[in-house]
Amino acid sequence: MQKVIFDTDPGVDDAMALLFLHKHPEIDLIGVTTVFGNASIDVTTRNAQFLHREWGITAPIAKGAGRAYAPSRSDDHPASSVHGLDGLGNIGVPDTIDLPLDPRPAFQFIIDTVRDNPGEVTLVAVGRMTNLALALQADPEIAGLVKEVVVMGGAFHVNGNVTPAAEANIHGDPEAADAVFITPWKLTIFGLDVTMKTIMSSAYLAEMTASGGADLKLLSDLSQYYIEFYRQRVGLDGMAVHDSCACVYLVAPELFEYRTGPVRVVCGGLADGMTIQAPDSGRRFEGSAWDGQPSQWVALAVQPEKVLETLRAALTGSR
Amino acid sequence: MQKVIFDTDPGVDDAMALLFLHKHPEIDLIGVTTVFGNASIDVTTRNAQFLHREWGITAPIAKGAGRAYAPSRSDDHPASSVHGLDGLGNIGVPDTIDLPLDPRPAFQFIIDTVRDNPGEVTLVAVGRMTNLALALQADPEIAGLVKEVVVMGGAFHVNGNVTPAAEANIHGDPEAADAVFITPWKLTIFGLDVTMKTIMSSAYLAEMTASGGADLKLLSDLSQYYIEFYRQRVGLDGMAVHDSCACVYLVAPELFEYRTGPVRVVCGGLADGMTIQAPDSGRRFEGSAWDGQPSQWVALAVQPEKVLETLRAALTGSR
Repeated sequence: MQKVIFDTDPGVDDAMALLFLHKHPEIDLIGVTTVFGNASIDVTTRNAQFLHREWGITAPIAKGAGRAYAPSRSDDHPASSVHGLDGLGNIGVPDTIDLPLDPRPAFQFIIDTVRDNPGEVTLVAVGRMTNLALALQADPEIAGLVKEVVVMGGAFHVNGNVTPAAEANIHGDPEAADAVFITPWKLTIFGLDVTMKTIMSSAYLAEMTASGGADLKLLSDLSQYYIEFYRQRVGLDGMAVHDSCACVYLVAPELFEYRTGPVRVVCGGLADGMTIQAPDSGRRFEGSAWDGQPSQWVALAVQPEKVLETLRAALTGSR
Repeated sequence: MQKVIFDTDPGVDDAMALLFLHKHPEIDLIGVTTVFGNASIDVTTRNAQFLHREWGITAPIAKGAGRAYAPSRSDDHPASSVHGLDGLGNIGVPDTIDLPLDPRPAFQFIIDTVRDNPGEVTLVAVGRMTNLALALQADPEIAGLVKEVVVMGGAFHVNGNVTPAAEANIHGDPEAADAVFITPWKLTIFGLDVTMKTIMSSAYLAEMTASGGADLKLLSDLSQYYIEFYRQRVGLDGMAVHDSCACVYLVAPELFEYRTGPVRVVCGGLADGMTIQAPDSGRRFEGSAWDGQPSQWVALAVQPEKVLETLRAALTGSR
């Protein structure tokens, strides 16, 4: 069993990833930490509570950052056009959910949980990297105590989805992401290079839902607004399962191909929030900002059908 | 016959491109303008004079910019490790060549020649974009009088060659490149996405040289240092014919695939000199720096063998 803390901003594709982590028999979801992003921190935290209640998830929820890591950044820019005003496809989530939160802020929950389980915890971060950056700032030694870090974010050799240069999770807090990426821990990044190739069609979702229970019915309901966004704005019949890619990696890393090398994030200017890797196998550039930074893993190729099948099997309980 | 002004910083691969333009029967090389880059402006200009003398090229040479467009940029950073201290592979080019230069600076030569041949001149720019930016600054109307502009530069969905983010021609003068790319003229860009896939092996060059005359013997001699750079630093047996790609386009545009959309250049910071296109076919981003800028053409795929064959045919005079 892999011990996982899921750092998330639910968010539609976050919800699918959460259900996957909850239901997969090899994963022990030991905590959920929330962060602003797809909606405000109050809304994403309420959504985590809602999904926990509906799906019977018992892992503690710790509320995280409501604004970006760098004081100079403006507070928030929720992606309501993508995820709906309620962050879950406008399905009518109650304003408040009576489910207690962990008393600690997310970054402290991460620190304590990692220290209680040295070498055993995998952090899966699929929103802005703010909570991870705050945890590293407060306790840098956790870098050596975490098992590994898995990130959904960035766009390496494809265009972004917030600007032509940048993907939403990184663009929403570039300084936090840069701090996380230059930390010497094992880190694997799933950006748009692979997630935009991993499209669950509306028919696939419908078929999966028909063969599942009430949990899948809710997942399908809350995904429809998101699918409509993809239909109208991206021209796809279906949805990119961004966050689920990072979660499928935990149980099937062989479904992706990786390139290693230091990763930096552009902070400011035209390319604000852009992720750039200096491949270990590429040219050496003397005096570059990548010099001496730890090598990280970036997924650049994917077998989408097998990722979807891995998702389907866990979500429908057929494995 | 296509009337071409070749804006160049010879430079080893510049030399091959120059010989191609000189020898191709469909191209009328009506001027060569020099720019700093692969070496200082004095050296690249001297090299243009040397190649003209050796190869019997009669097109006028106009000396261009010796430093970047933006006053804030430092002067020069020649690529002597790539092209040799003399910019032509350390073959022992004489210090001075007794061949007169056009009295005008390059940007004025460009303006005058374009105005003398309205709608007929193609500008092929394979060094820093400084001369073109200066010409546009002095006479913006030439944008509507040029037939088209062809650029070697940039790296769109691959890493750079000066930093992980940026290619040399653009990194050497980002502000100039941005000014050129947001100008409303027909512009086609050949970056590392295609040029690093277009490798002339040392055996190919040797075979071509054996079937040619003294002009190819000189081309082969001056290319050996560059090939050694590629062997040691890039791990390739051969050389990327960067600048020749832009020239082959003139006679065989069907050998490349293109994507259209506005192109901006990052100026400053980690990604200084990076080129980013917002594809016309992609998502729309409100309020982005690409909004309202003219759509340009970026080559993203190439048929390398056919490009090499087109080069060989013209260089050996077999067409």
